[in-house]
Amino acid sequence: MDRALELALRGPAYGPNPRVGCVLLAAPAATATAGDARFVLAEGWHEGAGTPHAEVAALAAARAAGHDVHGATAVVTLEPCAHTGRTGPCAEALVEAGVGRVVIAVADPNPAAAGGADRLRTAGIDVAVGLRGEQGTALLRTWLSAVDRARPFVTLKLATSLDGRVAAADGSSRWVTSDVARHHAHQFRSQVDAIAVGTGTVLVDDPSLTSRTASGELTRHQPLRVVVGVRDVPAGARLHGPGGELVHLRTHDVTEVLAALHAREVRHLLVEGGPTLAAAFLRAGAVDEVHAYVAPVLLGAGRSAVADFGAASISDAVRLVPREPVPLGPDVLIVATPAVTTPSLTTPSEEDR
Amino acid sequence: MDRALELALRGPAYGPNPRVGCVLLAAPAATATAGDARFVLAEGWHEGAGTPHAEVAALAAARAAGHDVHGATAVVTLEPCAHTGRTGPCAEALVEAGVGRVVIAVADPNPAAAGGADRLRTAGIDVAVGLRGEQGTALLRTWLSAVDRARPFVTLKLATSLDGRVAAADGSSRWVTSDVARHHAHQFRSQVDAIAVGTGTVLVDDPSLTSRTASGELTRHQPLRVVVGVRDVPAGARLHGPGGELVHLRTHDVTEVLAALHAREVRHLLVEGGPTLAAAFLRAGAVDEVHAYVAPVLLGAGRSAVADFGAASISDAVRLVPREPVPLGPDVLIVATPAVTTPSLTTPSEEDR
Ligand SMILES: NC(=O)c1ccc[n+]([C@@H]2O[C@H](COP(=O)([O-])OP(=O)(O)OC[C@H]3O[C@@H](n4cnc5c(N)ncnc54)[C@H](OP(=O)(O)O)[C@@H]3O)[C@@H](O)[C@H]2O)c1
Ligand SMILES: NC(=O)c1ccc[n+]([C@@H]2O[C@H](COP(=O)([O-])OP(=O)(O)OC[C@H]3O[C@@H](n4cnc5c(N)ncnc54)[C@H](OP(=O)(O)O)[C@@H]3O)[C@@H](O)[C@H]2O)c1
Repeated sequence: MDRALELALRGPAYGPNPRVGCVLLAAPAATATAGDARFVLAEGWHEGAGTPHAEVAALAAARAAGHDVHGATAVVTLEPCAHTGRTGPCAEALVEAGVGRVVIAVADPNPAAAGGADRLRTAGIDVAVGLRGEQGTALLRTWLSAVDRARPFVTLKLATSLDGRVAAADGSSRWVTSDVARHHAHQFRSQVDAIAVGTGTVLVDDPSLTSRTASGELTRHQPLRVVVGVRDVPAGARLHGPGGELVHLRTHDVTEVLAALHAREVRHLLVEGGPTLAAAFLRAGAVDEVHAYVAPVLLGAGRSAVADFGAASISDAVRLVPREPVPLGPDVLIVATPAVTTPSLTTPSEEDR
Repeated sequence: MDRALELALRGPAYGPNPRVGCVLLAAPAATATAGDARFVLAEGWHEGAGTPHAEVAALAAARAAGHDVHGATAVVTLEPCAHTGRTGPCAEALVEAGVGRVVIAVADPNPAAAGGADRLRTAGIDVAVGLRGEQGTALLRTWLSAVDRARPFVTLKLATSLDGRVAAADGSSRWVTSDVARHHAHQFRSQVDAIAVGTGTVLVDDPSLTSRTASGELTRHQPLRVVVGVRDVPAGARLHGPGGELVHLRTHDVTEVLAALHAREVRHLLVEGGPTLAAAFLRAGAVDEVHAYVAPVLLGAGRSAVADFGAASISDAVRLVPREPVPLGPDVLIVATPAVTTPSLTTPSEEDR
């Protein structure tokens, strides 16, 4: 399964489909490990929408290598699908191939695709679910969240000065953070399905919202570019230039934005601001993760990263659980996810100051 | 000298006098190292104002142990003073004791105390200056800065949310940061000579500005408590309670504040806000170091950490050079010093967004 998880990572992080890996082991494989290379018949992974699913790719690879897969064990990171989408159902393909056993890390929560394990069991195949379940879930984190809740997983990106400003008094906002941090943010863009900004940012900054390499070239995958708000995107805006498709959602309703993007199979949305749109997503409880790039800069004036979202008192704050801070050149990236309660609010053990 | 630097660290970080360590080596010490314990006659360090200087302490220890210091080598982290302050001049004491050689890490920039090396040389003693000069300078960083510029070294402390707020919309500001971060800040208070806040913070937060242990007890050393601004400190304010002496400076002039504190021999001043006082210090170019405690919290409203200090555009920002970020529980401490120019501003190599 560890090998299958490795294979899954070869697929792209973006796209409507999950990253899945599959290892076919020769029968009889007493234990479902792919550790012993002598037992491995073939491997497969999913390379993105429109290409074969991991199981089908592995079966094809086995056949191409002249291996008999009858009675083989298929080790797969996600429950094989039971529906016919852009490709045929994988559960069916495994049944037809005559595998004897299927070991699965994570069950498929997608109502359209679920039922694969049942289909396999009905065909008399031995099915085990849950091996390396935690790792499998971590790998599919954003996809599982999106499919579970029928709306994209939302990462809110902030790039701020130490005093929380995203722009100076005159609105200038470029190069608050360093080259290193900006490059990191660009790499992240190449892993999401869509990037959203409010019309305010479009009108002030004229961003292109593309994913670029360190040398400035467009990367292969370009996320959808989403503008939220009623004002027009100017005809000469960079958003009309090379890059992902432009989607203008003339609404202030975050639920509507998420529904529209879910309908387009967006699994991971990156909200890049400005402060008003960030506040709207926070107010709607629609932020699943925050990426805060904090630059060692003080501005003293200018827009703060997040506009008013209705927190009147410290106890209304959105508390986050951070991961280890990541130094990026002079800046620090803080990745954090919303928390439900906080120890420091509930147990103020001593007088503050 | 490494040993002498270690000894110096035994002295307190606060106080008008520098931290100094001294090792007396038996003659003939061919090289000025304290590595070989056989040569060490005695050690000494300065324990704070009113107690013997390191050299005098070492000479006394040697005498108490019955060692002859004639012709000995004194290894000392700072140039021995030549003036009579609360204690007699150390250079004189070394001459009288008959040492043969003095090895010094850092020359004394203090005009009142300097001249010690000359005094020694005049007495025929061999003097070498600069051994481990860099380490010696680092150890005496705040003290050297204060003495050089005749004003305290200023650390600006900020405790902010990820969006740079120091208080919520209703003014509540307690427990933005975690227990761990607050404890760290308290430990830092015990190392400075004075803490300053503006009258705004006094009136809103009623802080006590004391240094406390994790369990809430007052530490031995309590920094001076400084309030800046014309409004009165209320009679019932916590600032009148147990803690360091209260000094109310009824001015808005930062230069005046620094002069008044220098006159009181404050070497290291911690400015703890609020936003208005922080901005005043930044505007005056009087911030030597920033300690930003950043909590993974979003507020969306409330006072930003630093008020307007006159930066109109990104190019007017105060750029800082940070040290490695320090995780403190869920929070991150960013320690940074003001930079003169910034690479990202001067070489914008690619389009930002
Ligand atoms: N440093 C950074 O990373 C960064 C990133 C982004 C932006 N910025 C800065 O942020 C500033 C722009 O701030 P902003 O707040 O105007 O930008 P914004 O959040 O991008 O745009 C706000 C606009 O979006 C529309 N909108 C969409 N959803 C909304 C909702 N739920 N509620 C209210 N309005 C909604 C409204 O315009 P309509 O009237 O058109 O509907 C609103 O005026 C610029 O100075 C820019 O440089 C900095
Ligand atoms: N989270 C934190 O770490 C933290 C720390 C401190 C404060 N805070 C928050 O900050 C808020 C208070 O903000 P604030 O800006 O009013 O506080 P402040 O900076 O402490 O006080 C401002 C006041 O100081 C006086 N002042 C002194 N020097 C001045 C100068 N050079 N220019 C102008 N005024 C000067 C003025 O009052 P006079 O009229 O009396 O001269 C001014 O109104 C509170 O909500 C507090 O909770 C948070």
